[in-house]
Amino acid sequence: MRGLLVGRFQPFHLGHLAVVRAIRATRPDDPLILGVGSAQASYSGPNPFTAGERIEMIEAALDEADLGEVLAIPIPDIDRHALWAAHVESLVPRFERVYTNNPLTRVLFERAGYTVVAPELVERSRFEGVRVRQRLAADDGWRDLVPPAVGRVLVRLRAPERLALLRDTRDPGSSVGGA
Amino acid sequence: MRGLLVGRFQPFHLGHLAVVRAIRATRPDDPLILGVGSAQASYSGPNPFTAGERIEMIEAALDEADLGEVLAIPIPDIDRHALWAAHVESLVPRFERVYTNNPLTRVLFERAGYTVVAPELVERSRFEGVRVRQRLAADDGWRDLVPPAVGRVLVRLRAPERLALLRDTRDPGSSVGGA
Amino acid sequence: MRGLLVGRFQPFHLGHLAVVRAIRATRPDDPLILGVGSAQASYSGPNPFTAGERIEMIEAALDEADLGEVLAIPIPDIDRHALWAAHVESLVPRFERVYTNNPLTRVLFERAGYTVVAPELVERSRFEGVRVRQRLAADDGWRDLVPPAVGRVLVRLRAPERLALLRDTRDPGSSVGGA
Amino acid sequence: MRGLLVGRFQPFHLGHLAVVRAIRATRPDDPLILGVGSAQASYSGPNPFTAGERIEMIEAALDEADLGEVLAIPIPDIDRHALWAAHVESLVPRFERVYTNNPLTRVLFERAGYTVVAPELVERSRFEGVRVRQRLAADDGWRDLVPPAVGRVLVRLRAPERLALLRDTRDPGSSVGGA
Amino acid sequence: MRGLLVGRFQPFHLGHLAVVRAIRATRPDDPLILGVGSAQASYSGPNPFTAGERIEMIEAALDEADLGEVLAIPIPDIDRHALWAAHVESLVPRFERVYTNNPLTRVLFERAGYTVVAPELVERSRFEGVRVRQRLAADDGWRDLVPPAVGRVLVRLRAPERLALLRDTRDPGSSVGGA
Amino acid sequence: MRGLLVGRFQPFHLGHLAVVRAIRATRPDDPLILGVGSAQASYSGPNPFTAGERIEMIEAALDEADLGEVLAIPIPDIDRHALWAAHVESLVPRFERVYTNNPLTRVLFERAGYTVVAPELVERSRFEGVRVRQRLAADDGWRDLVPPAVGRVLVRLRAPERLALLRDTRDPGSSVGGA
Repeated sequence: MRGLLVGRFQPFHLGHLAVVRAIRATRPDDPLILGVGSAQASYSGPNPFTAGERIEMIEAALDEADLGEVLAIPIPDIDRHALWAAHVESLVPRFERVYTNNPLTRVLFERAGYTVVAPELVERSRFEGVRVRQRLAADDGWRDLVPPAVGRVLVRLRAPERLALLRDTRDPGSSVGGA
Repeated sequence: MRGLLVGRFQPFHLGHLAVVRAIRATRPDDPLILGVGSAQASYSGPNPFTAGERIEMIEAALDEADLGEVLAIPIPDIDRHALWAAHVESLVPRFERVYTNNPLTRVLFERAGYTVVAPELVERSRFEGVRVRQRLAADDGWRDLVPPAVGRVLVRLRAPERLALLRDTRDPGSSVGGA
Repeated sequence: MRGLLVGRFQPFHLGHLAVVRAIRATRPDDPLILGVGSAQASYSGPNPFTAGERIEMIEAALDEADLGEVLAIPIPDIDRHALWAAHVESLVPRFERVYTNNPLTRVLFERAGYTVVAPELVERSRFEGVRVRQRLAADDGWRDLVPPAVGRVLVRLRAPERLALLRDTRDPGSSVGGA
Repeated sequence: MRGLLVGRFQPFHLGHLAVVRAIRATRPDDPLILGVGSAQASYSGPNPFTAGERIEMIEAALDEADLGEVLAIPIPDIDRHALWAAHVESLVPRFERVYTNNPLTRVLFERAGYTVVAPELVERSRFEGVRVRQRLAADDGWRDLVPPAVGRVLVRLRAPERLALLRDTRDPGSSVGGA
Repeated sequence: MRGLLVGRFQPFHLGHLAVVRAIRATRPDDPLILGVGSAQASYSGPNPFTAGERIEMIEAALDEADLGEVLAIPIPDIDRHALWAAHVESLVPRFERVYTNNPLTRVLFERAGYTVVAPELVERSRFEGVRVRQRLAADDGWRDLVPPAVGRVLVRLRAPERLALLRDTRDPGSSVGGA
Repeated sequence: MRGLLVGRFQPFHLGHLAVVRAIRATRPDDPLILGVGSAQASYSGPNPFTAGERIEMIEAALDEADLGEVLAIPIPDIDRHALWAAHVESLVPRFERVYTNNPLTRVLFERAGYTVVAPELVERSRFEGVRVRQRLAADDGWRDLVPPAVGRVLVRLRAPERLALLRDTRDPGSSVGGA
């Protein structure tokens, strides 16, 4: 029975890895799909990395952790929430079980007939996306928050520099005056 | 001479009903179109209900109030305001008179050659969409703010539960950590 | 060697003119393209004017200042920043040099192989788009902030009235209760 | 139990009216929704009329035929067929029964759990949209194919002239050489 | 009184130049806008060149022909014909007179209140976009069909090679089997 | 050095498998990405299967053939070919080598600086997508054209029935008359 875990993974951090590990431990034989949400977004404050970069981080981290095969699939946003479940269904292989702590995601998938499970979160306050991004932007203390393999990808992408820049910036359409 | 009243109707409340009643009283023989704005949106804080659910509320309320035939038409947002009047024109039957208190809507329709009338608002502070949604989310005191027929639709949709959930939630794309 | 300067020009003010003049002075023989960003937007607080109206202002101002031929091209937003440079490339004639003070624009064009130059800003605090729009909305003290030719366009468009209206308004989709 | 009949109604002709009449005869107490498909399209060969014009025709024809209340709702195309049923569900009031002879529509609604019924077609070869449009473009013999009330709308819209023009034309983007 | 001529200019050929020259001769003092239609399209059979490349051709040809200042503005397609005139209006400076031989464009602008003029076409059968593109794809006899300055741009873009390739190709999404 | 092979895989057939096998044989240590083109499409003649269904077929076939890990990523169409390479880049992990026989895909990736390789095609006339789909629609002789594991997925999806239905059908928006 395939499971689906949706997140933005900006970036893929130790909290995410703990959730994947817990799902794996509970259901070792079920294939797991990671839906990479807001896949169209990148180079913005809350979404600094492209979907491709995030999939690269996920592949590297799961390989390093020897957590078996996981299918990472980009899911672009759809501005019509009522179509969300059908949208995801059309982009990923058949799944039966959804893992989420987002109550809206829960409702939308329950309406569509899925079993929804809330994964236990490990040290939520520490491993929170926004906190990891703040640490990256300050280039301070972020290495303890991500798997080593993700750290290497982030260094190669010069992530601290990118995050610092995005913290204070506006859309690329408005460039004369700048930040 | 057909009239057009545009609103989001999230949900259709007694303030909306009073406006329809007043238009009806002034021009009893004119057909009236209700444009259901932001029709693409649903399951979000300011837009909890789908266009179809909102049309269901409107139909039920006007039937109950015996306010005659009203045509309810979904109008999706268009992110280009300069095209707004042409966008609405293409989706609804011909109309000559627009009812609105929104100054931007007024200007956009006046530019397109329409007569724009400001309907009198009844107890604006009480019957305001955002307030009705807050009461629904608290499941407290909302029944006095909507027509009885709308109340029955809201109960069937388990609206208080949906609104409570949406108050604290983020987009469905970001589900690992949740609310 | 053609240069590209991207901005929203809402409206085209003396700060913009000073930047164009400085670029012209440094590279008198290079054709210059003005990319009019957020071209799809208009009739909103930060984007009151249509792309066409902004191009009209630019043409009038540069003609008046005798600053030679400049090509003004509308650039709609693209919500995918990773595609921004390719998007602009496909809409404007070949260019080699980008002028911008926006660090995100800088990075996106550098990634795409362009030379990026930061134009010097003249009295930035005074000539800032948001400030010019506030003055227009108050119809007070805005004439000193724009070239005379732009002032004439703004008067013809009844810009102070439009800006005042947009300051307090919401989307045209939600018109019953209004501002 | 509400029923849903989806069509493009370009224009609403006697074949459509016969289908509505047959549904009404079989289930006189069920409200009926007419989904006006390809609602975004107009001024093209297969889609000459706007959604608003088509709703006007439907309202006039059903009023004339005294066929009771029918809810006409514009349904824009969605280029993702897997999301079609969820798309329609979000735009119209709750329905339980779908009327269609289109096998794809049947499958998409059956997948979503709906009862699908094939309405009997009356003189299909005569009352076919493409044939009605050909007759309109030739301004010959079309009046026998539409309800009288629709005929009056078509005359007011100068439909024969519009159809003749659209028969030989290309998109508005390519205008120098023309037809 | 500004005039507007809309075309796709794929590529800008001698027929287009003759039309511009004729408009200039009739109304020497009126500024002229060239709307570059289907601006979003490129690298396809009917639309081989980007909007930016087409604007480059127009600038070069009009400069060479000493035909005065012409404003070339990209106009992306909008799949909603009823909004076409409002769409163009929002992207280009105010205009009063539209030049077109496309009957649909004529109707859409007349509905919006514009004066529409049919420019006389010079040797239409010879100077037709599709014919110029066929000659380019065959790299045979195309130089007599375009202004010399456009010829130089086409050589720099290696247009015959690009056109030959596009003649037999499918969308980039389907690449295993290829042409 | 990661490689990228883009196709629509409607469905994933033995010709596709042979190409993957050949790439694997030549470069056994390079990770391979399969870009699933036209990912937004499904339930249409040329695109019967959703992206998720196609990824399921690919996973099953490569697992069966023991061809090692391949990353399958959905790539929605983008109607702007000039942005194609940047679009793909943003959705998949970094790659250096593109495999394609589509000349347009070749040009678009070469412009973006990639090495493009044409994979050798095995019995092209036999293993062609359109031919496999025809055989499926006739439910005759298709099993020899797909890997056994894909055959099992196709049976579970009742593919012959779906393909037969799609052969004669129109868009779901036009359902009264049907096929």
